[in-house]
Amino acid sequence: MLKGIAASEGIGIGTVRVVITTPKEISTAAPADTEQEVARFNDALEGFCADTETMAAELEQAASEKEAGILRGHIQLIRDPFVLQQITDEIRKGLNAESATDRILNSVIEMFRATGDQLTMERATDIADIRTRLIMHLQGIEDVDLARVPAGTVIVTEDLTPSMTVGITKDSVAGIVTASGGYTSHSAILSRALEIPAVLSVQNLLDSVHDGDTVIVDGTEGSVILSPADEEIEKYTKKAEEFQEMKLRLEAFRGKPSVTGDGELREIVANIGTPADGVIAKDDDAEGVGLLRTEFLYMNRPSAPLEDEQYEAYKKVVQTFGDKPVIIRTLDIGGDKEIPYLNLPKEDNPFLGYRAIRFCLNNHDLFQAQLRALLRASAYGNLRIMIPMITRVEEVREVKKLRDRCVEDLTREGKHFNPDTPIGIMVETPAACMMADRLAAEVDFFSIGTNDLTGYTMCADRGNSQVADLYTAYDPAVLRSIKRICSCAHNAGIPVGMCGEAASDPALIPVLLAFGLDEFSVSHEKVLSTRYNMSLWTRVEADHIARHALARDSAANIKRYLKDKVKRRISR
Amino acid sequence: MLKGIAASEGIGIGTVRVVITTPKEISTAAPADTEQEVARFNDALEGFCADTETMAAELEQAASEKEAGILRGHIQLIRDPFVLQQITDEIRKGLNAESATDRILNSVIEMFRATGDQLTMERATDIADIRTRLIMHLQGIEDVDLARVPAGTVIVTEDLTPSMTVGITKDSVAGIVTASGGYTSHSAILSRALEIPAVLSVQNLLDSVHDGDTVIVDGTEGSVILSPADEEIEKYTKKAEEFQEMKLRLEAFRGKPSVTGDGELREIVANIGTPADGVIAKDDDAEGVGLLRTEFLYMNRPSAPLEDEQYEAYKKVVQTFGDKPVIIRTLDIGGDKEIPYLNLPKEDNPFLGYRAIRFCLNNHDLFQAQLRALLRASAYGNLRIMIPMITRVEEVREVKKLRDRCVEDLTREGKHFNPDTPIGIMVETPAACMMADRLAAEVDFFSIGTNDLTGYTMCADRGNSQVADLYTAYDPAVLRSIKRICSCAHNAGIPVGMCGEAASDPALIPVLLAFGLDEFSVSHEKVLSTRYNMSLWTRVEADHIARHALARDSAANIKRYLKDKVKRRISR
Repeated sequence: MLKGIAASEGIGIGTVRVVITTPKEISTAAPADTEQEVARFNDALEGFCADTETMAAELEQAASEKEAGILRGHIQLIRDPFVLQQITDEIRKGLNAESATDRILNSVIEMFRATGDQLTMERATDIADIRTRLIMHLQGIEDVDLARVPAGTVIVTEDLTPSMTVGITKDSVAGIVTASGGYTSHSAILSRALEIPAVLSVQNLLDSVHDGDTVIVDGTEGSVILSPADEEIEKYTKKAEEFQEMKLRLEAFRGKPSVTGDGELREIVANIGTPADGVIAKDDDAEGVGLLRTEFLYMNRPSAPLEDEQYEAYKKVVQTFGDKPVIIRTLDIGGDKEIPYLNLPKEDNPFLGYRAIRFCLNNHDLFQAQLRALLRASAYGNLRIMIPMITRVEEVREVKKLRDRCVEDLTREGKHFNPDTPIGIMVETPAACMMADRLAAEVDFFSIGTNDLTGYTMCADRGNSQVADLYTAYDPAVLRSIKRICSCAHNAGIPVGMCGEAASDPALIPVLLAFGLDEFSVSHEKVLSTRYNMSLWTRVEADHIARHALARDSAANIKRYLKDKVKRRISR
Repeated sequence: MLKGIAASEGIGIGTVRVVITTPKEISTAAPADTEQEVARFNDALEGFCADTETMAAELEQAASEKEAGILRGHIQLIRDPFVLQQITDEIRKGLNAESATDRILNSVIEMFRATGDQLTMERATDIADIRTRLIMHLQGIEDVDLARVPAGTVIVTEDLTPSMTVGITKDSVAGIVTASGGYTSHSAILSRALEIPAVLSVQNLLDSVHDGDTVIVDGTEGSVILSPADEEIEKYTKKAEEFQEMKLRLEAFRGKPSVTGDGELREIVANIGTPADGVIAKDDDAEGVGLLRTEFLYMNRPSAPLEDEQYEAYKKVVQTFGDKPVIIRTLDIGGDKEIPYLNLPKEDNPFLGYRAIRFCLNNHDLFQAQLRALLRASAYGNLRIMIPMITRVEEVREVKKLRDRCVEDLTREGKHFNPDTPIGIMVETPAACMMADRLAAEVDFFSIGTNDLTGYTMCADRGNSQVADLYTAYDPAVLRSIKRICSCAHNAGIPVGMCGEAASDPALIPVLLAFGLDEFSVSHEKVLSTRYNMSLWTRVEADHIARHALARDSAANIKRYLKDKVKRRISR
């Protein structure tokens, strides 16, 4: 049995397809005709660029704009005239195209690495990727088309690259196993989105597993069983059935109200990223939207979206949900989300930088176009506006002033809209937590962004594996912050929701119920399980659990206590 | 009059020396003998590298290891064989050395820029710097030696580069004026350290000011007066005298106890970076050390310092202060402080990453060597150990366990030390603020690190000018945090100090007195002014001011209120 990172839940049993991503050894033979060799190089280059552009376009369709950008960067890099000239010169001096490509791109890689600058050195990795793929093109090795593998295939590879992921589906791929990558890597995110069991970072993977092997991929435990015995296949088939059974049990909660064990009504809504996600979330029984991220409107394009285009998109989501609430978050760029045409400066600590409302309050035209579009869409349902990354009371007041100006203008223009469209804020910074009493007096609702709140409170970047242990909402500092925010909201008489991942964590749900959290905004596939978990606890039980959890000193201790409580309750 | 950024206080009147850092126009003349031209290039290259290495070595001596590293990177970059080959080829094709250098390095710059990657693009700036300096070498233009300018010189330049700053003193340089750079730029930090008045980021500077001009540099207001009239020289001479007078007024507080207006005793100690700083701080009347940063022991060397070397350094500082307290902070690397031999990974958000105690708890050998050295030095005075970047109670417990192990070992070895050496923590993360009650039960003292606490609470990187407005200890969220930390310390019966810049801010001192801050740790030159400012307020007045400040909503409002209070009090 091999162990790795449990990156996507579920059990997959199937036949291995090893995907190799390295070229054959490079021949040293001199070309018969150097000009023909130059032509062969140019053909391969065109082929490489065309293939890369095709992949980029497909990725863009699949809304993986970042990976598409990386691929397009590859085209730009290899088309650099300085580099092309060098390669051509080398071929004319008698090298074959593969050797010339290898030699010159290696020189470039060396030069990038010689800078000693970590990020420039990482750029060298991109060039190494180009070198490999271009040489494979010259050698006539085709990229494996994972979209056309037979059903029951388990993909085994070094790492899923953007170019490989296009077209993978759970109908054909039973599992994914890689030698590298972490829980938040591209491979992991993709596997979870596709609901394909996945185990990553398996050591000695490519030495242990071969084409045609039968394997079991346990994406829940993070293990891969090689050439399993019949009993094992039986055992894991049962496990896979149980996994499906739980899925069925949750189906009983479809269409039901979201209530605690003693019938207190709460609300379960969805976090979504596009209008299309809204339709999926509605199908998955979300009672509205707790967070529509609006970045999709701003990405993958040469300039900012106009008001009308935004209005149409917001209207679509609002209409999907009828009279149910749809909370739309204003533009939250910066941090890890880049939008080239905004020309935001590169920052040393982007998460402590110029992002979200900080940017919007300095770019009134852009922000007011969004506010106008939101207000106009409010005519079609139950729309609420949410402001991210608030640290100060005066930021809220400035937003409300801009809102008032938009209301005035829209009234004068005779546009239909709800002039009382609620405005709320994400509470996700330590400053907002400290000032929650004053902020609550200014807004119509709170939504706790536990992802960023955890990172900022614990001073731990979510994407940094070296501080992964610190990044946890189970830490008493984070739980106290959440409790404080809930209390301040209720003292001011406004509702409080949560749109971070903690809202759907079974072990945290009793604590959040005790804190009086009104609205749980979760990813669409977690709507039913959250409703199920909510139903397990009465208010008295939840209060007892929260009190005992907060009496403990450490995140590990609290987590153990809460996980144990849930485990006993579910197996009851 | 020209306006700029007030980067270093004081008035300087003197004669301009413009320092040009750009080469002459490049000739297009072909060389008579290409091989001689190659030799001329090689000579210039060797000269460039030798000069650069000399500068790097001098900088390293002056403990500016980062700049030294940048300069040495230049040598590595220009010695890249790929690049040198290209330049030599161009010369052999008939270009002169300046043109060849210019053409090839421009190609390299273009290639770096073409990546579109911001950091690689910044690397291009380094290469542009090499190109400029190498061409100046070829043109025989010498670097200006600022160490040998006559007294009363005002340096005017585009920006102070590391290579220019070696040897500047306030005896010869009356003022510094630059066309670029901000309050935290290299030029600014250097000017303040040298107590030379400085104004930075002056627009159109090099068009307006010429060699030999008389100018007044007002580093307090951020203005530069060109060719001043006699009345102006008189006025500013008076201002310079007042500046000196305030310095004298503060002298009256030398050797006096640190007390509030009604005689409550507090403590004013110093933040220092080396044992030598300790001597200066004692001369400046510090009542001990509130923060000895130990990074100096770990930087500019190929490997970590051994226990004995550390012990000697700590002992020296402790002995300097006799029975007065010396608080020594354990290693605080990561964030913006890099130490090459520790091989720390480059992080996307280093301030939310693997730093300080997080690193030390994963590197027991390194950390225990420091704890042992600290304990052994405790035999010679009043030493206290302080742990930075605490977020969790269990981190403190782990430190204490390691301390106990060291105590056991040292006892067995028969070493002298104080087994009851106090252990305290920096309170500088939002998590530690939220958990301050629990943490106070575990340690002997708190020291509030307002610099990082402000950054983390406000989610604003101190070095990022785009969020400079958010980075302020006047924000009510930060003041509430400080108040909470002070209360938790006092409820637990332990003393609480502050070692961030807020501790010496005249306008914040009454608020800190009201919060009951016991120890103010400030930079050595602020010891007397802090004692003076402390003497201005009775406890009742301070309480009144703090209450009114905290009733306000915004940092701007609070700052205005507090600054006004101090201004009225001083002019009383």
